[in-house]
Amino acid sequence: MSAPNLWRRLVAEFLGSAFLAAIVIGSGIAAQRLSPGDTGLELLENAAATAVGLFAIILMFGPVSGAHFNPVVSFADATLGGISWRDAAAYLPAQVAGCISGAVVANLMFGLDAVSISVKQRASGPHALSEVIATAGLLLVIFALARTGRAASAPAAVGAYIGAAYWFTSSTSFANPAITVGRMFSNTFAGIAPSSVPVFILAQVGGGIAGVFIIRFLYPALTPAQA
Amino acid sequence: MSAPNLWRRLVAEFLGSAFLAAIVIGSGIAAQRLSPGDTGLELLENAAATAVGLFAIILMFGPVSGAHFNPVVSFADATLGGISWRDAAAYLPAQVAGCISGAVVANLMFGLDAVSISVKQRASGPHALSEVIATAGLLLVIFALARTGRAASAPAAVGAYIGAAYWFTSSTSFANPAITVGRMFSNTFAGIAPSSVPVFILAQVGGGIAGVFIIRFLYPALTPAQA
Amino acid sequence: MSAPNLWRRLVAEFLGSAFLAAIVIGSGIAAQRLSPGDTGLELLENAAATAVGLFAIILMFGPVSGAHFNPVVSFADATLGGISWRDAAAYLPAQVAGCISGAVVANLMFGLDAVSISVKQRASGPHALSEVIATAGLLLVIFALARTGRAASAPAAVGAYIGAAYWFTSSTSFANPAITVGRMFSNTFAGIAPSSVPVFILAQVGGGIAGVFIIRFLYPALTPAQA
Amino acid sequence: MSAPNLWRRLVAEFLGSAFLAAIVIGSGIAAQRLSPGDTGLELLENAAATAVGLFAIILMFGPVSGAHFNPVVSFADATLGGISWRDAAAYLPAQVAGCISGAVVANLMFGLDAVSISVKQRASGPHALSEVIATAGLLLVIFALARTGRAASAPAAVGAYIGAAYWFTSSTSFANPAITVGRMFSNTFAGIAPSSVPVFILAQVGGGIAGVFIIRFLYPALTPAQA
Repeated sequence: MSAPNLWRRLVAEFLGSAFLAAIVIGSGIAAQRLSPGDTGLELLENAAATAVGLFAIILMFGPVSGAHFNPVVSFADATLGGISWRDAAAYLPAQVAGCISGAVVANLMFGLDAVSISVKQRASGPHALSEVIATAGLLLVIFALARTGRAASAPAAVGAYIGAAYWFTSSTSFANPAITVGRMFSNTFAGIAPSSVPVFILAQVGGGIAGVFIIRFLYPALTPAQA
Repeated sequence: MSAPNLWRRLVAEFLGSAFLAAIVIGSGIAAQRLSPGDTGLELLENAAATAVGLFAIILMFGPVSGAHFNPVVSFADATLGGISWRDAAAYLPAQVAGCISGAVVANLMFGLDAVSISVKQRASGPHALSEVIATAGLLLVIFALARTGRAASAPAAVGAYIGAAYWFTSSTSFANPAITVGRMFSNTFAGIAPSSVPVFILAQVGGGIAGVFIIRFLYPALTPAQA
Repeated sequence: MSAPNLWRRLVAEFLGSAFLAAIVIGSGIAAQRLSPGDTGLELLENAAATAVGLFAIILMFGPVSGAHFNPVVSFADATLGGISWRDAAAYLPAQVAGCISGAVVANLMFGLDAVSISVKQRASGPHALSEVIATAGLLLVIFALARTGRAASAPAAVGAYIGAAYWFTSSTSFANPAITVGRMFSNTFAGIAPSSVPVFILAQVGGGIAGVFIIRFLYPALTPAQA
Repeated sequence: MSAPNLWRRLVAEFLGSAFLAAIVIGSGIAAQRLSPGDTGLELLENAAATAVGLFAIILMFGPVSGAHFNPVVSFADATLGGISWRDAAAYLPAQVAGCISGAVVANLMFGLDAVSISVKQRASGPHALSEVIATAGLLLVIFALARTGRAASAPAAVGAYIGAAYWFTSSTSFANPAITVGRMFSNTFAGIAPSSVPVFILAQVGGGIAGVFIIRFLYPALTPAQA
């Protein structure tokens, strides 16, 4: 199959990012309502829904756009010789718009105002360190598979990785600037206050750069099928 | 293997739909009994059992009938050039009868009356929006895989998707008119009052139509193996 | 690879059945200790450990013995033209001895007496119906895969199915006479009183017979690779 | 692809072991904070994060180093004709250093002192028996797959096995001397007091020896692809 045209790919990135944000935020709202006062159980519900949901939506949109839903992934892919820089730049606004739309849809599905700005402060040193590590690990999973002819395992691997990273980091692993922006627009369980966003995005970019270096060291050769 | 004859396929749809309803309703009853007063944990138990159960029953019946268990899936398949319209129409009563039978079996497995009519009101705007989105997403998962030669991943993908959709929608994602009807017949955790059923089915049909449009846009070409 | 000799296969059935019982009973003891008074959470922990553990042990022993760990599976396999009747009869005592040994090991791993006889009454009509359905479904999963060249999916499918069946039946789905016997020997969460065992085993045999009939109807032809 | 050079493989073992320890310890800290006083739920959260995290990191580093992260696995591999003894000896310090580093990173991600020595006593007869069985089972999973051309299933199988073993053993299944050492360095949920470490490591070595004997009996032949 030749690569789908850019317009179709942008629609896929937009819809997939919208589903991603709706899953993360929607399951957070459900968890908060159904398990009030039990933060651990809420996060377990939120993480489990996100992990299996990610698996499904990467399968849904992967053959069209690569199912990045994440500018760090797109730009890392460009750096590592996958998509063009021009395409990565085109993906970014589709991803951000998708994540914001998904936040709105999640709010509406639960009968809330279409938009509410989160007041949850998340910026801190440990959270920034968490985002660096979570993002570097995410790139390692994706490109270790892509560079060894195992891309068919990526949907399960990314879902599993993020499910774990909700728990092994203190930041619950956003690891994605687009969803970080989207999560500002819901003052619910998964929200993030706008003032905390710059720290998160900086840390994610830092983690992305670290991840690319490690991938280049560990997997220097592209297999012919991936080049 | 040539396609099994229609009679055998209808038995498969009936049995699979019965298992589906027994899993959804039975695990709901167990959850309600074992975790009283903790709705979040109940839904986690119900969603986890449904997700892994769906995976198993799609594997069980897939090679015979396609393992739809859902009229929206069957009619979307007919629209998209899969099964014939005549077969889709024949599947529908088997699916509905299967889901009702599964509800009865679930009730009996837990020592309840064979039939009790649910009084759980579920009709609302946010729930209808949830059903539209849940059903469109379900079709996207199924046909994105079918149209790209990845149908072998459908059992895991559908189970995972529905497991997530229990949480990211406010309706817990019925996404299936046949099970919506079946769930009227058990006045337990997973039940739905008859008066709420029409709204759910309308929303599911709407989501099905939206899903078919998106699939046609994103995956216009049938691969030769699927045509 | 030619079939391993019978002695090696019996060791595999013995060890696998021991692991199975140790997983079911051991995780039940852990759940009971760590989540006292919360039966729903206990069952969730027990079911999740069993589901993923089954996946692992079927992978462990499958190529040697087929990883039945269950006389109903072995005799159904003989009926359906898989292993010989003589081999099925040889598997049975290895499976029962394995499950009893696993119960002892579980007790010892948790610092309990090597053997204690369960006093948990489980015999009832709804539980018997549950065992019939759970066992028929288990055979459907296994032989639907075996007869369509998809046996590689059996470890995940059986684990997932049993994980669901813990919840959608009132009996928590023993579905296996060998482990039913083994579970008498631990007076803990997963135990069963000896007086309840005959009803369970009868129901499992009934479910096995029903399962074989359904498989023969739905999947009449063996693929050449399986014959 | 020819085998990557040793230096690259050691970096992979170091990073993978660091991720492993960060996942185990980090998710333990999160569980302890978010579900205080509910040990069962804490262990469920910890086990689930570890299971899915292991799946992801074995996929991440497998093609480079084999993704052992565990000296018992490396020396068993040498015994069974996989890697050389010299390489196994080189892996060991990378694995231990990685697990210690991962403990430090986990502490820092949660805003704790970089190092704190655990005071959790874990040495006991039942725990030692648990570690023997857990480690033997781990080797059985890994080498049953490696010796039958199914190594592609190892990431999922190892994650699932360890997820189950958290529950079916009383020790929560460390099954790995490197992470046993690493877990001394965090006085949190997953920690272990230094005085308990020798018993655990001895039991793991004993389980490793037992595992190798069972593998040799059940799977005597290397398939050509693995030799």
